[in-house]
Amino acid sequence: MRTLIGDISGKVGETVELEGWVDSRRDHGKLIFIDLRDRSGKVQMVALPNHEEAHASATALRPEWVVRVSGTVNARPEKMVNKDEPNGAFEIEISDIAVLAMAKELPFDLASDVNIDTYLDYLPFTLRSEKSRAIFKVQSVITRSVREFFNKEGFTEIQAPKLIGDDAEGGANSFNVEYFGHTAHLAQSPQLYKQIMVGVFERVFAVGNVYRAEKHSTTRHLNEYTSMDIEMGFIKDYGDIMATENAFLKHLEMSLRESCSEEFKLLGSEIPAVPEKIPMMTLREAQILITGETGVDCTKEPDLEPEHERWLCDYAKRTFDSDFIFITDFPTAKRPFYTFRDEKDPVYTKGFDLLFRGVEITTGAQRIHNYDDLIASMKEKGLDPEKFAFYLQAFRSGMPPHGGFGLGLERLTQKMLGLGNVKEATLFPRDINRIDRLLSSTDDNIKN
Amino acid sequence: MRTLIGDISGKVGETVELEGWVDSRRDHGKLIFIDLRDRSGKVQMVALPNHEEAHASATALRPEWVVRVSGTVNARPEKMVNKDEPNGAFEIEISDIAVLAMAKELPFDLASDVNIDTYLDYLPFTLRSEKSRAIFKVQSVITRSVREFFNKEGFTEIQAPKLIGDDAEGGANSFNVEYFGHTAHLAQSPQLYKQIMVGVFERVFAVGNVYRAEKHSTTRHLNEYTSMDIEMGFIKDYGDIMATENAFLKHLEMSLRESCSEEFKLLGSEIPAVPEKIPMMTLREAQILITGETGVDCTKEPDLEPEHERWLCDYAKRTFDSDFIFITDFPTAKRPFYTFRDEKDPVYTKGFDLLFRGVEITTGAQRIHNYDDLIASMKEKGLDPEKFAFYLQAFRSGMPPHGGFGLGLERLTQKMLGLGNVKEATLFPRDINRIDRLLSSTDDNIKN
Repeated sequence: MRTLIGDISGKVGETVELEGWVDSRRDHGKLIFIDLRDRSGKVQMVALPNHEEAHASATALRPEWVVRVSGTVNARPEKMVNKDEPNGAFEIEISDIAVLAMAKELPFDLASDVNIDTYLDYLPFTLRSEKSRAIFKVQSVITRSVREFFNKEGFTEIQAPKLIGDDAEGGANSFNVEYFGHTAHLAQSPQLYKQIMVGVFERVFAVGNVYRAEKHSTTRHLNEYTSMDIEMGFIKDYGDIMATENAFLKHLEMSLRESCSEEFKLLGSEIPAVPEKIPMMTLREAQILITGETGVDCTKEPDLEPEHERWLCDYAKRTFDSDFIFITDFPTAKRPFYTFRDEKDPVYTKGFDLLFRGVEITTGAQRIHNYDDLIASMKEKGLDPEKFAFYLQAFRSGMPPHGGFGLGLERLTQKMLGLGNVKEATLFPRDINRIDRLLSSTDDNIKN
Repeated sequence: MRTLIGDISGKVGETVELEGWVDSRRDHGKLIFIDLRDRSGKVQMVALPNHEEAHASATALRPEWVVRVSGTVNARPEKMVNKDEPNGAFEIEISDIAVLAMAKELPFDLASDVNIDTYLDYLPFTLRSEKSRAIFKVQSVITRSVREFFNKEGFTEIQAPKLIGDDAEGGANSFNVEYFGHTAHLAQSPQLYKQIMVGVFERVFAVGNVYRAEKHSTTRHLNEYTSMDIEMGFIKDYGDIMATENAFLKHLEMSLRESCSEEFKLLGSEIPAVPEKIPMMTLREAQILITGETGVDCTKEPDLEPEHERWLCDYAKRTFDSDFIFITDFPTAKRPFYTFRDEKDPVYTKGFDLLFRGVEITTGAQRIHNYDDLIASMKEKGLDPEKFAFYLQAFRSGMPPHGGFGLGLERLTQKMLGLGNVKEATLFPRDINRIDRLLSSTDDNIKN
């Protein structure tokens, strides 16, 4: 009967059977120390010469071998306790070792600091490092927290399609798929589907892959990422959407404090304190502020430049002690056709971005719910309503005032944990040069 | 302040503000009855002539209009109570109506029985029917139940990529994607990635879209569907995998009983009773049984035919009173390269199918964890290990005995609810003829 390493603290003096990977081995001749790792933690084990067979087995072990070990849980003497390790007060005295699988020679030590290309080349190995496991544990807690919060708030989770006909968000950046003699596309977002579903369930959310055929390989770009998409009906205006996102982030903070303190410590980052009310200002106000404080006039620009996003985050931190700030009322010209316009000044939208630690992590908005207004907005943007006939049925059938937002899971994970590259927060990142292995014109692995 | 219809029972005598869709309107001249629908339920409202303005508004209302209604919650007299409706004991006396959105002329009555093509042509409208809402509520409870169970059991949820290089499960049925001058593919399953992740987290699950480029449009086929994939390490053998699936199904039964009794009743189906131990037999035993009982010799066949699956389900029902039966030990020749073989008779695998109400809903197996065995199996199947070099790193790095299974969300929903067509259990089904709208060679909506 297997005992998880995380459960040994209650079993001092008992004989237990552990299973896991050899994390490291230190051979001191008579004493051989093995650190064993399983999904619940790590513990030091020792093979003594009096258990001859086990001692011989321990000599042969190498990192990443998979073993089943029987042994006694001993409490370490006070002065030998390692306070930095969760199980640093214990040691397993090995009585028996069974090798479940050997490893071949490893490419490098798992704890080594390697460059990003080497890291990606060896993902099935490098993902086992303490750092990677911490990152993707945090990521799984984020998705769990999304589901907890939105289920509790009466949202229904939906499965949005990724294979789409025309590219609803307008083009150049979509991947083409050969579809039975037609060309289909990979969805850039579940936007139109989640709006349709507001007509069915009022409040919906979707977590799934989305695609951008951007021809860049940078620390910020991914060609496939995970979007967490929320949409809700019967709102007063976009204030309700921002309040909902604010409440979700508060819930997320609590989930992370409960489950991921160790992981944040390991990665040298801090769980952000989410204000009860995240500060907000309009784009116009932000631009006047930036212009006034920096002397560089940005009031004519239709959007925020990356350096303005950073500046505003610094400003929010020093003025409101907030890692977050909402910027609202982006110009209609820069927002998609379905974005609701300010009734008093239709040059501006009821749309917003949420900035966090220097970058935009959310784009959201109230949407147009009136059929005729939507048709007019499409025409103004040069779009053909006939191409959106399927989507438009929702609006022909009566749609409540609604809106929503999207959050990129990998970018959120990255910024939460202070990672330099979004690819470190993506299990198997795809970019212009890589699908698992590097792509090259002579590489037939990808050409099939 | 909005009140949800589901909360009115505690507000008899109070004035409330409700928001929702006009589900139906019955005009009796002096009395106008409106059924209002929101995400929490439905209630009858009445406009009386003494509220002149509200009465005039009510006259104008049509189905699917979106309204905000103020009114008093009245308890109906005993003889007027409609026991078939959750809110059949109440009626809202309307004092004010605000129209939030009108609907255009509707294509047909939402409650009409339409054929599947019409249903699919008008999904943004037809998904609003009581039946569709029930189906997709059940579906959301299934995915929630998966996450509850596997999180509790120490599994980590992962985001598996859908854009892949070579088609790991061997070919003809994969969609091609134009990828920066290369050809990529849409994943048919997260199989290889979930195995890699067993090396990282021991126990993982993934819920996401998978793709099959099958050239069929039937009641069983989908080109994009949602796969719930589970993989776990440190198992004794495939018995542990089946036991885990059995325990999950038991949990699912409880979740459905708790949240979806009304929906099952509405759809005329029964929540299946999951046995403590689902009956199981080997394929060989099943074939001998079928041959003995039907007189038709199927003992030479390498797999189960659809009629055999139905027969075995009938058999399990009448013999063990079970809607489920595991069939195990399929031949190595019919299973993928990574399937673990029976040590005593390597012609057979430690693989299984789970049959439910006449069809296979799961394929699962123990997997090969030894690197050299895996290479040998690939070569025997005519596969080139070099193409799997990325995946094989996991096995070079030491992999525990492991296995898992996959469950198709839409098919499970369909069979649970006794629906005739899997497309009824898919929000926006894609088939060879349809991506939202029908495809045709002259249709440029899909050609971009």
